[in-house]
Amino acid sequence: MRISAVWDFLSSPCSEMLELVQITILDEDFHVTPVSEEEHELNNRVPSRPTPELKFELDDEGDTLSNHNSITALLSSKFRDIQKRLKQYGIESPRFRKRLVSKWESLNYDVCENVLYIKEQEKYKSKKWVTLRWLSKWLVMFSIGIMTALLAATIHFVVEKLAHLKFDLIKHYFDDCAKNNCLYQPALMWMGINLVITVAGAALVTFLQPMAAGSGIPYIKSYLNGVKIPGLLTFRAFVAKTLGVVMSILGGLACGKEGPMAHSGSIIAAGLGRGRINFCNGKSISFYSAFRNDHEIRDFMAGGAASGVSSAFGAPIGGTLFSLEEAASFWNQDLTWRVFFSSMVACFATNFLISAINGDPTKLTDPGLVRFNAFKFDLKFDLIEIPVFIFMAVIGGLSGALFVVMNYKLTVFRKRYLNKNWIKIIEAGLVAMVSAAVAFGLMVGINDCTDKAPFDSHAVTAAVYCTDKKHNSLSTLFLTTPEGCLKALLHDPFESHGPVSLVAFVLIFFLLGVWTYGLSVSSGVFIPSLAIGAAWGRLVGIGVAHLMPENPNLGVNSSLIKQLDVGKFALIGAACQLGGILRTTISLTVIIVECTDDISFGLPIMIVLMISKWVGDFITTGLYDMNVEVMGIPTLPFECPPLCDDLRASDVMSHPLATFKTKEKVENIYRMLKEETFCGFPVIEDDPMAPGKGKLKGLILRNQLLVLLKKKIFCPEGQVPPRNITIKDFRDFYPVYLKVSEIDLSDEEKSYVMDLKPYYNPSPYTVEQKFSLPRVFNLFRGLGLRHLIVTDEKNMPMGMVTRKDLAKFRVGSKRGLVKIEQLKIEDK
Amino acid sequence: MRISAVWDFLSSPCSEMLELVQITILDEDFHVTPVSEEEHELNNRVPSRPTPELKFELDDEGDTLSNHNSITALLSSKFRDIQKRLKQYGIESPRFRKRLVSKWESLNYDVCENVLYIKEQEKYKSKKWVTLRWLSKWLVMFSIGIMTALLAATIHFVVEKLAHLKFDLIKHYFDDCAKNNCLYQPALMWMGINLVITVAGAALVTFLQPMAAGSGIPYIKSYLNGVKIPGLLTFRAFVAKTLGVVMSILGGLACGKEGPMAHSGSIIAAGLGRGRINFCNGKSISFYSAFRNDHEIRDFMAGGAASGVSSAFGAPIGGTLFSLEEAASFWNQDLTWRVFFSSMVACFATNFLISAINGDPTKLTDPGLVRFNAFKFDLKFDLIEIPVFIFMAVIGGLSGALFVVMNYKLTVFRKRYLNKNWIKIIEAGLVAMVSAAVAFGLMVGINDCTDKAPFDSHAVTAAVYCTDKKHNSLSTLFLTTPEGCLKALLHDPFESHGPVSLVAFVLIFFLLGVWTYGLSVSSGVFIPSLAIGAAWGRLVGIGVAHLMPENPNLGVNSSLIKQLDVGKFALIGAACQLGGILRTTISLTVIIVECTDDISFGLPIMIVLMISKWVGDFITTGLYDMNVEVMGIPTLPFECPPLCDDLRASDVMSHPLATFKTKEKVENIYRMLKEETFCGFPVIEDDPMAPGKGKLKGLILRNQLLVLLKKKIFCPEGQVPPRNITIKDFRDFYPVYLKVSEIDLSDEEKSYVMDLKPYYNPSPYTVEQKFSLPRVFNLFRGLGLRHLIVTDEKNMPMGMVTRKDLAKFRVGSKRGLVKIEQLKIEDK
Repeated sequence: MRISAVWDFLSSPCSEMLELVQITILDEDFHVTPVSEEEHELNNRVPSRPTPELKFELDDEGDTLSNHNSITALLSSKFRDIQKRLKQYGIESPRFRKRLVSKWESLNYDVCENVLYIKEQEKYKSKKWVTLRWLSKWLVMFSIGIMTALLAATIHFVVEKLAHLKFDLIKHYFDDCAKNNCLYQPALMWMGINLVITVAGAALVTFLQPMAAGSGIPYIKSYLNGVKIPGLLTFRAFVAKTLGVVMSILGGLACGKEGPMAHSGSIIAAGLGRGRINFCNGKSISFYSAFRNDHEIRDFMAGGAASGVSSAFGAPIGGTLFSLEEAASFWNQDLTWRVFFSSMVACFATNFLISAINGDPTKLTDPGLVRFNAFKFDLKFDLIEIPVFIFMAVIGGLSGALFVVMNYKLTVFRKRYLNKNWIKIIEAGLVAMVSAAVAFGLMVGINDCTDKAPFDSHAVTAAVYCTDKKHNSLSTLFLTTPEGCLKALLHDPFESHGPVSLVAFVLIFFLLGVWTYGLSVSSGVFIPSLAIGAAWGRLVGIGVAHLMPENPNLGVNSSLIKQLDVGKFALIGAACQLGGILRTTISLTVIIVECTDDISFGLPIMIVLMISKWVGDFITTGLYDMNVEVMGIPTLPFECPPLCDDLRASDVMSHPLATFKTKEKVENIYRMLKEETFCGFPVIEDDPMAPGKGKLKGLILRNQLLVLLKKKIFCPEGQVPPRNITIKDFRDFYPVYLKVSEIDLSDEEKSYVMDLKPYYNPSPYTVEQKFSLPRVFNLFRGLGLRHLIVTDEKNMPMGMVTRKDLAKFRVGSKRGLVKIEQLKIEDK
Repeated sequence: MRISAVWDFLSSPCSEMLELVQITILDEDFHVTPVSEEEHELNNRVPSRPTPELKFELDDEGDTLSNHNSITALLSSKFRDIQKRLKQYGIESPRFRKRLVSKWESLNYDVCENVLYIKEQEKYKSKKWVTLRWLSKWLVMFSIGIMTALLAATIHFVVEKLAHLKFDLIKHYFDDCAKNNCLYQPALMWMGINLVITVAGAALVTFLQPMAAGSGIPYIKSYLNGVKIPGLLTFRAFVAKTLGVVMSILGGLACGKEGPMAHSGSIIAAGLGRGRINFCNGKSISFYSAFRNDHEIRDFMAGGAASGVSSAFGAPIGGTLFSLEEAASFWNQDLTWRVFFSSMVACFATNFLISAINGDPTKLTDPGLVRFNAFKFDLKFDLIEIPVFIFMAVIGGLSGALFVVMNYKLTVFRKRYLNKNWIKIIEAGLVAMVSAAVAFGLMVGINDCTDKAPFDSHAVTAAVYCTDKKHNSLSTLFLTTPEGCLKALLHDPFESHGPVSLVAFVLIFFLLGVWTYGLSVSSGVFIPSLAIGAAWGRLVGIGVAHLMPENPNLGVNSSLIKQLDVGKFALIGAACQLGGILRTTISLTVIIVECTDDISFGLPIMIVLMISKWVGDFITTGLYDMNVEVMGIPTLPFECPPLCDDLRASDVMSHPLATFKTKEKVENIYRMLKEETFCGFPVIEDDPMAPGKGKLKGLILRNQLLVLLKKKIFCPEGQVPPRNITIKDFRDFYPVYLKVSEIDLSDEEKSYVMDLKPYYNPSPYTVEQKFSLPRVFNLFRGLGLRHLIVTDEKNMPMGMVTRKDLAKFRVGSKRGLVKIEQLKIEDK
């Protein structure tokens, strides 16, 4: 009844002009409030409405099903009509977060057990092969770790050297010009350097591989969830990502290199897994092909992402959990252990390399690129500090949600108005210049002088207007990379930064962070988030220190206590802010704990991350999820949305189906591939009595058919079909498959017949039409399926359930209450 | 061909007398070496052999299937015949590790979506209910954490106080009697105290709930894997476990309380989840029933096990990973986060309580029962130490494997000869007495005197024959709980323990550890393993210190360096030994890292755990896995064993099936339940034309049928069946279900008819007979199924795949090569 009410609501003529973009199927108590009396009447007419395409043979439990059966299916086709019409009028859906984009396809984890596969398996059926395969998986994981570490150390070295050069140069002009009244010179120089480098970085990303923009983590999350992201794991993306991130940081943007490291690690993993490098000019070098399928590549990629995080933060456990948190539905113990291994190797090798760069390779004191591990005093906390931490977590959750909301508005604005390549590059340049200008303005305007030596003895400090060997306190924050800024905020002495500087810094860095994230440059959001949080955490620390200036029970120097306290509060603030923005939980806790190199702060960090997540979730989703939603990627949650128990497989499936017979005319295949966008086609028994109504025999994929057409595996009817094709021929096209347009067939060839029997998957997973949505969902999610065929009682295919059919039911929470919405599926 | 060769081998008359207990199906190159020429000939006869019960309708791919189709199925029935015969002759299988015991059943995670369930769901179909349910899950997790912490703190307090009393008493007699030459007094007293307490503890466990014996972790692993373990989560088990572990430790056994804490935490979780306590007298208090199903209870139990580990070691991340490592196939992000929450609460509350017991509740310095966190100097390692650590890891792996092998032999011996309750109790008492006697002998015999104050200022030190304010160095190891002993080994100064004492300690404690594990007492193996490893690690440290006595570059006091080194080597040794015995990987690494409270040692710990696991796995399985194997519990691995791709669902399924019609005679149901041991029965269409050959309609469970019979939901044929039953009636019997013997039916009632339609699950998961084993396995494992019905092309049920049918194919590695074996399924 409920859904049919929605259906009426939609089918009534006037409703098309109303709220069309979002259908919240169910209201507070799960009954749609009727919109008008007129529509109320319509309710009664619905059951008699014929549903031409669908004929369900309901059995005698039918009475419990009939009132909503097939309604949803019709609903979605109705939707498409409305959309088309809207498009004709030039009205596009304005709500980016309430749709799925149809171009995103599922990865294919299922093994196609056709005759070719079985034949190949026979060949490798010995213990030696099994053992060898097992060993080579470990070897690949080892290589992933080593190469990720090499990359991390190189980036670290290059960025540190060049950034130091740049800021040293600016500092000298600063100090000289403060006396000679020519401060416009360093300002212009700063802005100029930023502009040139950032524009170069933005151009690289925009023209070489736009998928390399941003941190890449939302894409990696989606990939691990089972969505194919074209271009994500290519050599181009690798170049754009790694060079791009170096340029972004040197270009003075408020961004970090940690997210990009996870992406780069994934690309390395995918490349090593495939055993092939595709170059930009279309050429490629191929080494081996044993792991060329989505399942193995995903496993390696989990290791790559973990290694990236592990190198970046020196957090092998956190890195492993990072992969785990996203990919848990396909997890197993062996894989976890392998991922942990590569993550450990990456951490260890990074440690070795950076220690070697610093002159002592055997000391192993720098396990990652960012470490907060220099707390000079033991971090200890007292129970009475917990309320302060909780208060900070609430602030973190709120400001994190604000960050996400602002960035969301900006993202939508960008998608709509700033979608030309040259505009994107100009925007990046603008942000870089503004970053420099604002930093310059703050340093000169606030002119907060301090004589406290900064924590890092190599830090660039500019005096500007300060005298008496004092220096401008903001210069230690701005004349450095964002990582250096973060470290300064965590470890600089108590008096280094005054409240005014800190307030200004928080505001400016917050806005710059919002503006920077989502630019067409390679940039991570971890470090700026942490820096914002550390700055306001420091403010809270100063406040607390003023309220309770000294603890008379501890016979320690008061400035010592103050310094300790401020660092502690900065750390908690950083965790709160990051938690409020990202909302990842267990992995983030472990990463921060590993970064601080001290487990005793684990508990307060867990508590604040949990609370900041709750507070943030009350208002909006996390930043990465927001990204995924805006791009319309159909990620599947871990469990079926609640309250969907009474939907059946037949309600959610796509239909009518395009099917093939076991022996099909080439012309039909070619036409179908051209006309339909489906990626999988059920193969049915060729029943001459009831054409198109045969029993299900198997499932064949678009990619397989394209390869078969390309290799011309067909013959005139009645002849023996050619079999000159092996499983390697299919694998060679992985992962960049053929397009229909690349197939060239003569008219004679079109009249030939193709025998699909040796190629289709003879036992695809199927469900009966009565299966409830939660069970369909579990099956789909638990096995990582791409296609699930819905059959009737006689084993005839009725429809197909794919990822988007399930992902369109999205559960959210709004002000603490659960909310279910049905997303549209759009072409763009 | 291969499998049919095995089949011949088995079916040949003489082979029955040969190696029957283990069938390694395939040899090095996966062809069974023919045993004799005679059998070679038999090979050719097989295909013509009629297979009476199985009639597969093979399609035209049949040629690829026919040579092994149904062979395995027949194989297993053949097996049963052989077993029965062997039993008649009184010959029982001697190989405990090559069998599965049929009494272990699967847990049932699938929702039975019958009409009753749908009706109930309707009632709860509002956002408020969903939100409330969500909240109460969090609340239960919170309570689990708090209660586990309360328990942990109580046990800790009681054990510490009483143990101190006991050892103080013995020490006084020791010191007095050394002068007066009456040392037999403390010896006898020590042995007497141990005997009395241990016998009481053993009796408690043996008579109250034998499931409470040992650490409980193998059972918990199995439960999380999806096996039902009757008695594991009862109130009796809780009492036996908690009181028992206190007595075991006070009784002087070489055991810890950490494994039992995980078990106790699980019981608390299960109790809170069920919302009911069953007392020993059959009475129970019931609070709520919303979570009374296997799925929810498993989720809570994961939280309980994590909380237990977290309280024990102060390791919230390690605890979460511990649950994760075992239960990963049913894992999801939300659950991980909830488990982490309860784990965190447990750690926090334990910290608070123990700090409160120690006098300062707000300081939060004792996050767990065992902490290694008192390393006075920074633990730092140098790259050149890694080879030493690797050497230690190899020792750990080897000695761990030795531990497992010896304990396995002992376990088998116990199962065969020490299976009377009173013998078990006597054995426990004997071990306790020997432990005291040996400790006494060593202390007096070696008489190693030292004047170094022990690390723990509260440690009991006896002088015995030592003078000049020196004390017997072994007294700090033996006159304390095993945990105190471990701490002393990790932290005592360099000179405290001489090499002779340490060698003697390692040997004795190793043997005692082997003997103790598996006694009918509540006891964990973590602490003794760590203590053994710490002792020989200390020996290695002393050796290294002698080879490289001082580092001239460091201007530090040499004894300081020595002390530092020895603690470090003791820690690594402990990790190696534990890794070699248990072989859990990622969780153990994190637990040890969290215990040391210092992340910088993470990398070497990971490396040594990995290597000790590899070395150990080369020889035998881990201790817990060995336990599971000996008990014949059918746990499923994470992935399908390799090389099984050519087995089909029809090869592994159990058949013939016992089926019911949708309207079935009560007599038939009653008889079937009595005669068959199946737990699930397919319900088929009542086809009068072909009786017993109908299409599959659903699946009904034994438990459901028993409840229906008990509630007398049947009527004479033709009448309207009674419907006075709700889903709550079924739930009330969870998890202790009815037995057939409790059903009482009159002859008239037996002639009645039961309408099963409202009760069976209308859409059970099914596969077609041609499905390959890996796909069946993935389906079964991915969804956590209990029954999977195998159907033919016409949707008629042909057989059933259950956990045991899949678990019987076990993959192992022997000397680095993969090995597949097929286990027998036995009744006992």
